[in-house]
Amino acid sequence: MSTDPREQQPDRQGSRIDPHVGRYARRAQGMVASEVRALFAVASRPEVVSLAGGMPNVAALPLEPFGELVKDVVAEEGAAALQYGSAQGDPVLREQLCEYMKLEGIDAAPDDVIVTVGSQQALDLITRVFVDPGDVVLTEAPTYVTAINTFAAFQADIRHVGMDEQGVVPEELEEALVRAELDGRPVKFFYTIPNFQNPAGITMSAARRAAVSETCRRHGVLIVEDNPYGLLRYDGEPQPTLYSQGEGNVVYLGSLSKTLSPGLRIGWALAPAAVRAKLVLAAESAMLSHSTFNQLVVRRYFRKFPWKEQIKAFNGMYSERRDALLAALGAMMPQGCTWTRPEGGFFVWATLPEGIDAKAMLPRAVTERVAYVPGTGFYADGRGRQSMRLSFCYPTPEQIREGVRRLVGAIEGEVDLRDTFGTTLAPPGEGDQAPAPDTP
Amino acid sequence: MSTDPREQQPDRQGSRIDPHVGRYARRAQGMVASEVRALFAVASRPEVVSLAGGMPNVAALPLEPFGELVKDVVAEEGAAALQYGSAQGDPVLREQLCEYMKLEGIDAAPDDVIVTVGSQQALDLITRVFVDPGDVVLTEAPTYVTAINTFAAFQADIRHVGMDEQGVVPEELEEALVRAELDGRPVKFFYTIPNFQNPAGITMSAARRAAVSETCRRHGVLIVEDNPYGLLRYDGEPQPTLYSQGEGNVVYLGSLSKTLSPGLRIGWALAPAAVRAKLVLAAESAMLSHSTFNQLVVRRYFRKFPWKEQIKAFNGMYSERRDALLAALGAMMPQGCTWTRPEGGFFVWATLPEGIDAKAMLPRAVTERVAYVPGTGFYADGRGRQSMRLSFCYPTPEQIREGVRRLVGAIEGEVDLRDTFGTTLAPPGEGDQAPAPDTP
Repeated sequence: MSTDPREQQPDRQGSRIDPHVGRYARRAQGMVASEVRALFAVASRPEVVSLAGGMPNVAALPLEPFGELVKDVVAEEGAAALQYGSAQGDPVLREQLCEYMKLEGIDAAPDDVIVTVGSQQALDLITRVFVDPGDVVLTEAPTYVTAINTFAAFQADIRHVGMDEQGVVPEELEEALVRAELDGRPVKFFYTIPNFQNPAGITMSAARRAAVSETCRRHGVLIVEDNPYGLLRYDGEPQPTLYSQGEGNVVYLGSLSKTLSPGLRIGWALAPAAVRAKLVLAAESAMLSHSTFNQLVVRRYFRKFPWKEQIKAFNGMYSERRDALLAALGAMMPQGCTWTRPEGGFFVWATLPEGIDAKAMLPRAVTERVAYVPGTGFYADGRGRQSMRLSFCYPTPEQIREGVRRLVGAIEGEVDLRDTFGTTLAPPGEGDQAPAPDTP
Repeated sequence: MSTDPREQQPDRQGSRIDPHVGRYARRAQGMVASEVRALFAVASRPEVVSLAGGMPNVAALPLEPFGELVKDVVAEEGAAALQYGSAQGDPVLREQLCEYMKLEGIDAAPDDVIVTVGSQQALDLITRVFVDPGDVVLTEAPTYVTAINTFAAFQADIRHVGMDEQGVVPEELEEALVRAELDGRPVKFFYTIPNFQNPAGITMSAARRAAVSETCRRHGVLIVEDNPYGLLRYDGEPQPTLYSQGEGNVVYLGSLSKTLSPGLRIGWALAPAAVRAKLVLAAESAMLSHSTFNQLVVRRYFRKFPWKEQIKAFNGMYSERRDALLAALGAMMPQGCTWTRPEGGFFVWATLPEGIDAKAMLPRAVTERVAYVPGTGFYADGRGRQSMRLSFCYPTPEQIREGVRRLVGAIEGEVDLRDTFGTTLAPPGEGDQAPAPDTP
């Protein structure tokens, strides 16, 4: 056994070797590393096909002109780029982000935008500004894993609302709102990813969007609309944003992580003026200001690069990968498996045959040299054990086909096990937060 | 009057035009914009000599080779630089930061370092991990304004400990700790800036460092040591860090904002393993990961640039500016004024003659085309009205001399006013949080 105390699971509460136990804030109790994190370290080996991570394929960006561009930023505006900026973000970039949002049908004022460290920070700031311990936050079921972590870090009471293939079910949303009112618990917002949802790959229909807007407005509940994938649509028709029909009741989150680069960490929130002002104050105490350098790089990118063409090029590449995944699943998946058919984005949600536990299966899958994210991570309440998220953004079509072949091998092995022992489902209550920093 | 609701002071709690009032978290009540912010917008005009902001003079960095360097990052490691990174930060950069800290006499392991969005984010994460509403945080009096904002944003009970020219007074620290114990209030940490303190310009003596370490250890209270200016020493002898004598009881915060560039937002925390693990989880929910791009730029800067020589060059420039400020103050300030004589860093703390209010004087000073930060912003309890922070980092020596000349004009005007009306001090209770995002 190791004698270095640093190697002895330092982040377990109650560990003898942490002299600071007992000093942490209550919110820190919920900050626990994922059990499956160690497995993902193995899964990042090159011989493993990862259908787990949500990393965009940034290598598809033309690097040479991009390098010239960043050099020009330093040469021509270096003194500004290397200096502090404002907590709200560069004004010119905020104008450009409004142009970008026009492609989504949003008519926004730059003054209502705050630039954030990815849309993750926007989510964090919104939670910080709105959520007291015990306040209710409603989300789709399943939902984005790190959103769950953020809400939990501010001690929210996270409640899920069911979805079907049209998106969140308005009657279930209504029911959740009424139940919270009966409980006397304030609902601070409904968090939704309406386009190509992470992890479910589902897009909310126009009728559902209207119903969700109406329901939240009637109950006086804010909507947080997270839309990082909106412009990555491969077929079907764009749907109106919730923001555009929200009448000041929606905070909209955008991101360039999927349409340019996550390494620059440029996200934003578009919010009603009073909320935006609170978010700016929260950002100031959280980090003073975002990187001016990165903001001026992106500002120049919008000016000098054919960025709309670049998004089309990304769409061509990702569309091919999605088609490869859906074709491979259709051709190979065993009976009893089901999966969603996303019109864009990065993710497919697959459900295994009755009695098969996706989390219990993961070690077998990694042995077969394929990785995915078990469904439990996308719920706050331990559900999702029979499901998994498969992402098609990073591997090539050929790797995707090989990955599905290996996955099918793992599923068939588990089906044999089930047929011998009855089930592979772990006992209830073992649902855990899922994994890896690379799964936005 | 404006008819655009966005222009009507949107961030005042209770304003009729904010439909979200009543939905905010309790912690958001304390997030209020500074009253003097509007004045600072005026003060940023080119004809005003600003002794207010803490912006480093980044134009002193050789921009051409720096531009080549960022271009090479994109060309040679662009696919990595533009991708997501880990929440703890790039491992090679963390090794380099340990080399950097060796210059401060710190022997650190890269695994104990987390890279953050400036040291401001490190401060935010520490507060998030340790502070429940009502918990006590001890700070020097005065202290860094945005640290106060961060502690307040997590609803800490901020208590000040007095300083003299040797730094914080150990007997007062002891007394504050005992008082909190008698009150039954947990003290989560003592926050200190031991070198060239912001705003006081004071450096804690070696004897005081030993006494502070011993006192905090005896009371079981963590020390948060914020050291952004440590390597910017213009004379005198370096003092040992609190970290190096802290025996696992210190979280150390570092920053490249003053020795390279604030626009890259590279700060870090060095923490005991268990605390570091909590900080990484908090960082993940706060922003997923810092900018990989910026981290790889800095990684290459440490490899390719004569960065120690660059710090020496910065020191030469800032030393000249400090000398200019101290000489001008000595030559021109009216009787009854006092000020500190920093051995490094960016700031001088000046105290006005009896009965003169630095905040009340600010409009007159801006009319005279000079700006400073009134002392009240550096206290959580409204003290500091007779004092001001003067920074010498950004203006040239010539501008500094002209700025002091104008400042003296303003003081003499206030002294006349006092001699007519008895005082210019505002009634107690009007102390407010200070200003401008450019005042780290």
